[in-house]
Amino acid sequence: MHKKILIIGAVALGTKVATRCKRLNPNTEITMIDQGSFISYGGCGMPYYLSSEVEHIDELQKTSANVLRNPQFFINVKGVDHVKVRTKALEINRQEKYVLVENLDTKEQEKIPYDELVLGMGSTPILPKVNGVNLHNVTTIAGLEDAQAIRKHCEHGMNDLVIIGAGFSAIEIAVGLSEMWGINCTLIKRSPRMLPSLLSPTLSDMVKNDLSKANINIISEEEVLEFIGDEKGNVCEVVTSKHRIKADHVILAMGVKPNIELAEKAGLACHPKCGVIVNEYLQTSDPTIYAGGDLIALKNLITNQEMHLPMGSMANRQGRIIGTNVAGGNPVTGKETFAGAVGTWIMKLNLGTVSGTGLNEDQAKKAGFDAVSISMEQLDKAHFYPEKSMMSLEVVVDKKTRRILGMQGYCEDGMSLKARIDAMAVMFQYGKPTLHDLSNAEVSYSPPFASAMDIFNACGNVADNIVTGLAEFITPQEFEELFAKRENNNYIFLDARPGLEPKKLQEKYPNYFYATSLETFEKDFENVPHDRKIAIICNSGTRAYECQLKLKAKGIKAVNSSGGMQAMKKRGKEY
Amino acid sequence: MHKKILIIGAVALGTKVATRCKRLNPNTEITMIDQGSFISYGGCGMPYYLSSEVEHIDELQKTSANVLRNPQFFINVKGVDHVKVRTKALEINRQEKYVLVENLDTKEQEKIPYDELVLGMGSTPILPKVNGVNLHNVTTIAGLEDAQAIRKHCEHGMNDLVIIGAGFSAIEIAVGLSEMWGINCTLIKRSPRMLPSLLSPTLSDMVKNDLSKANINIISEEEVLEFIGDEKGNVCEVVTSKHRIKADHVILAMGVKPNIELAEKAGLACHPKCGVIVNEYLQTSDPTIYAGGDLIALKNLITNQEMHLPMGSMANRQGRIIGTNVAGGNPVTGKETFAGAVGTWIMKLNLGTVSGTGLNEDQAKKAGFDAVSISMEQLDKAHFYPEKSMMSLEVVVDKKTRRILGMQGYCEDGMSLKARIDAMAVMFQYGKPTLHDLSNAEVSYSPPFASAMDIFNACGNVADNIVTGLAEFITPQEFEELFAKRENNNYIFLDARPGLEPKKLQEKYPNYFYATSLETFEKDFENVPHDRKIAIICNSGTRAYECQLKLKAKGIKAVNSSGGMQAMKKRGKEY
Repeated sequence: MHKKILIIGAVALGTKVATRCKRLNPNTEITMIDQGSFISYGGCGMPYYLSSEVEHIDELQKTSANVLRNPQFFINVKGVDHVKVRTKALEINRQEKYVLVENLDTKEQEKIPYDELVLGMGSTPILPKVNGVNLHNVTTIAGLEDAQAIRKHCEHGMNDLVIIGAGFSAIEIAVGLSEMWGINCTLIKRSPRMLPSLLSPTLSDMVKNDLSKANINIISEEEVLEFIGDEKGNVCEVVTSKHRIKADHVILAMGVKPNIELAEKAGLACHPKCGVIVNEYLQTSDPTIYAGGDLIALKNLITNQEMHLPMGSMANRQGRIIGTNVAGGNPVTGKETFAGAVGTWIMKLNLGTVSGTGLNEDQAKKAGFDAVSISMEQLDKAHFYPEKSMMSLEVVVDKKTRRILGMQGYCEDGMSLKARIDAMAVMFQYGKPTLHDLSNAEVSYSPPFASAMDIFNACGNVADNIVTGLAEFITPQEFEELFAKRENNNYIFLDARPGLEPKKLQEKYPNYFYATSLETFEKDFENVPHDRKIAIICNSGTRAYECQLKLKAKGIKAVNSSGGMQAMKKRGKEY
Repeated sequence: MHKKILIIGAVALGTKVATRCKRLNPNTEITMIDQGSFISYGGCGMPYYLSSEVEHIDELQKTSANVLRNPQFFINVKGVDHVKVRTKALEINRQEKYVLVENLDTKEQEKIPYDELVLGMGSTPILPKVNGVNLHNVTTIAGLEDAQAIRKHCEHGMNDLVIIGAGFSAIEIAVGLSEMWGINCTLIKRSPRMLPSLLSPTLSDMVKNDLSKANINIISEEEVLEFIGDEKGNVCEVVTSKHRIKADHVILAMGVKPNIELAEKAGLACHPKCGVIVNEYLQTSDPTIYAGGDLIALKNLITNQEMHLPMGSMANRQGRIIGTNVAGGNPVTGKETFAGAVGTWIMKLNLGTVSGTGLNEDQAKKAGFDAVSISMEQLDKAHFYPEKSMMSLEVVVDKKTRRILGMQGYCEDGMSLKARIDAMAVMFQYGKPTLHDLSNAEVSYSPPFASAMDIFNACGNVADNIVTGLAEFITPQEFEELFAKRENNNYIFLDARPGLEPKKLQEKYPNYFYATSLETFEKDFENVPHDRKIAIICNSGTRAYECQLKLKAKGIKAVNSSGGMQAMKKRGKEY
C-alpha cells in the first residue's frame, strides 16, 4: 500500500514538498489542500503586480515555461494525487492519524487520513485593534485576492494610500504605487527608525531619504487610533496619535504571525511568537508531522535563539527537504537536514537597494555580544571604471573576539550589494567568520565589478583598524550633532576632501570649518586653532583616516565622521 | 634606531606594504624602489584604457579622490621615506643585508641596507621564441608604457590586431578594441578551448560565441611560427602553422611568469613555475625577507598544490598583510596570516560575463578527484520580474563525497553572476562545502534579484539529482553529436518545450524530432517510436527532467541535454 501524505497549505512550501516527494518516490499518495482559491503563487511578487511591473496576476502563478500552476497542473504534470482548494483544515487527530477538513463553499466536512502530515499553513497579517478595520478599501496584502482588489483600485484611480507598517511589503508597495501610479503614499509606523531590527540609524536615514525622493511620506513613532469611513462605508481618513490623514485606501502591513492554532490544538510544541517548533529534519514534536515555511520557528545560527523568518526562499528550500524526507530520504544520503538561518534579506527601494544578513548592532547587543557597528563608503567598482556606484556597507563585530555578527548595506546598484551581502551570508552559515576572514575573502575582481581592494575586504580592514584602536570614528549623526552644537562645544571641523569644496565650507562657516589637503597638511595645520577639539570629515572616510593619523603623530586625538560627505548626502544632509 | 624596510617593486603589492606599514608604525624607515617610471597603477585597468572607456592614462594612477599616486604622493601624503623609480635591484646580499641597485638612467649603483626586505617584483610576459618578436608594433601589455603605445596606435588608425594568447588580458583587449575602435581582432591560441584550465567545453563555446558577436576572430590549436615585417620594420603579417594573417599590430599576451631570478640568485626557495615560496606570514625561506603578489607561489586551498595566481586583488590583500607584519604585527592580534587561494576570477566579455572559482572538471580530475561537472540554465531573477537574464551555472563535484570543487558561469548580467560565484568562493575558503551546503545556502531573495529558489541553490539541487542518479544528463555537445549522427544511431529527440516551437522542429526533422508537452505526455508518447533511444531537450532543462522521470516510470531510460535550447543558443547553435 502507498504511503499517504497529506499536505496542508499549497502556496510555496506545500507544492514544493509534493513535487519533490513525487519525483523521488512516485509510490506515495499525496493529497494537498489549501483554504484559498489560488495555489502556488509567487507572493513576494505581489508588490510588482500592484505597481504593474508584472502586468497580469497569473504571471505570479505561472512556471518560467509560462504554464499556469493550478490544481490540474499539479495533478497532470506533477503527478500529485489529490488537490483540494477552498478546503480548510479544522482539526488534526494524531491518534487516529487524520485531518478533519471543511470545504469552504459547500461546508461539507471529511476526514483525510495520513501516514505523514506536512503543515504549511503559513502566516497571517497582524491587524491593529482599532475601529474601522472592516471598512471598504482597508485591506491586507496576504494573498492574490488582496492584490487584485488593490490593483483594481489603482486602475480606477486611487489617490491617497496609507500603509500601516513599514516592513518589506509596506515599503515595496509604497515605492511601486508611488512611482508607477503616482499615488500619494504615507507609511505610518511605531518605531523611530526604518526596519529597526535590521538597520543602523545611518542606514535607516538613507532608506528614509531614498523613499522621500519618491514622495513617500513617512510618519514615525505614531500609532493608528482609528480608520474613519464615509457615508458609503469607504475608508476616507486615518487617525493617529498626532495626525489625521486623508486616505481612499489603507493597507495593513504590520507584519505577520505564524498560523499555529491548528498545531497548538493538536498539542504540537510551538513557540508562541516564532511558530511551530521543528527539529533538524523539520519534524514537529510529533515525528510523523513535518512543518516548514512561514509557520515554523527557526534557529538563528548566530544567536542560537528562536526567530520567525517568513520568506518565500526559506519555504522553497525547506519544502525540498521535507519533500525528500517524506519520500523516505535521498536514496544515497538519506534524510536531509535544515540547520537554521542567519536572516538574509534584500529590498529594492526607489533610488537604491538595501540588504543585510545576520544581526544589526541592537540585536547583537540584545543577544549578549559586545558589539559595535562600523560603516564605510566606497565605490563598488574600480574608481577609474566609468560605471560605478558609491556603496554603503556596515559590519557588526564583537569587539573582543572580532567575530562578525552582521552586515548591512545600501547601494544604487542592488545586485552589486547583493554580491557582498550574500558572500557574508554564506560565511555566517558555515562558520564563525572574523574580521580576518572578511579582509581576506577571495571575492572575484575585475574593474567592471570591483576594486582591487574590494569594498567587501576593505570593510573588514576599516573595522580592524577601529577595533584595534588605530582609527576613531563617529557616526554621521554624531558629527551632525557636534556641528549643530558648535557654538558651545569647542569643536572645529576639518574637511580633508581634495579640491575646492573644503574652501567653500571654510568661507560658509568661518572659524568652524577648516580645509586641509593631505598634500599640504603641515602648512594647513598651522592655520587651525590648536586649543579646540577636532572632528574630521572627507569624501568617504579614507582621507579623514590619513588625516587622523597625521594628527595622532602630533599627539592630537581627533574623530572621523564615518562614510564622510557621501554618507551625509545619502542621508539627505548637505553642508 | 628605526627599522629599515626595503621594498622592491612599487606597483600593487609594494605600495600597499609601504602605506600599511607606515600607518601602523611610523617609526620605520621605508625605501621603495621600482625599475619602471610609473608606480602604483591599476594594471588591470589597462584594457579599459586601451578601449578608451578610461580616457586618460593617469586615471589608472589616481586615487579615488583624484590624486596622482606618484613618488611625491607616497612621500608627502603617505610618509614613505624614499621612493626611487627607474631603479633596478641587481642582487640581494642576505649575509650583509643589503640590496645592490642600479639607476637605469645614470647607471649608478648603490647598496641599500635593510632590516627587512619585501619582494614585489611581479611577473613578466611569456614571449614566443620566434622570429620577428622585435618588430615595431609587436608589443606586450606588461605596463603603462605598453598601454600608451597601443592606445596611440589605435588613435592613429590601427586596422588589424593579432593577439597571441587568449587569457584574461587578451580577451579583454580584443573586446575593447573591437567594440570601441572597430579594429579587426584575431586571437591565436594553442588550446582548442577558451580558458581550458578554467572552463568546461560548454562555457568555452559560450565565450567563443560571445566574442564572435563582436567580430573577434578566434584561431585555435595553432602555434605562431613567425612575425613578418615590412620594409620599415613594422609588423605586417603573422604566420601560424595553418594561416598567414594580416596585422599592423601584434600583442603578445600568452600569460606571465613570476620574476624569480633575483630571489633564486639569493638562494631563496622557489617553485620553478609558480614563484617564490612563502609561509603563511608571507615570509620567504629567509624570515627577514617577505614576498607577495605576482611573484609568489600560492597554495591552492582545494588541491593543496602550488599555483600561480597573478591578480591585482591578491597583491592588494597580501600587501596589507606584509605591511602589518613588517610593522611588527597588529598591535592587538599580532602577525597576520594568508592561507592561500581558491582561484576566483571574473571577466566582462562582449555580450556577457564569465566568472568562476575553484577547479573545473579537468583540473579536478588532474588533482585526483572523481569529479563531474554539472551545468544548468535558469533565470537569475524571478521569472515574472520584467528585467532578468538567463544564467548558465556549472558546479564541479566529487561524486563520492559530494564535495564541491568548483563553480563557473556565464551571464549577461555580470554582477548577478558575480553574486553567485563569490558566495561559492567564500564557502571554499572557509570549509569543504558539499551539495547540501549549496542547496541550502541562505542567499538573499527578492524578485528583482533572485528566484525564490535561487539558481545558486537550484544548481546544488540539480547536481544532487544527478549525483544521486535520479537525473541523467548529457552535455549540449553530446546532444549535438547524437543529432548529427541521427541516421545511424537509432536515436529520437524529444522536445519538451511548451508552445509551438517543438511542432516546428517536428516538421523540420520528421521521424527525428518529436514534440511532447508534459501536460499531454501520455497521449504524445503514443506517437513516439518505442524501439529507439531517446534524448530529451527542453528550454532550460527542467521540463526535460520531468519528462525523463515520466519515461523512467514506464521503465524507459532517456538522457537530457543539459541547459536545453538556452545553452544551445548561447553556444551559437540553433535547430
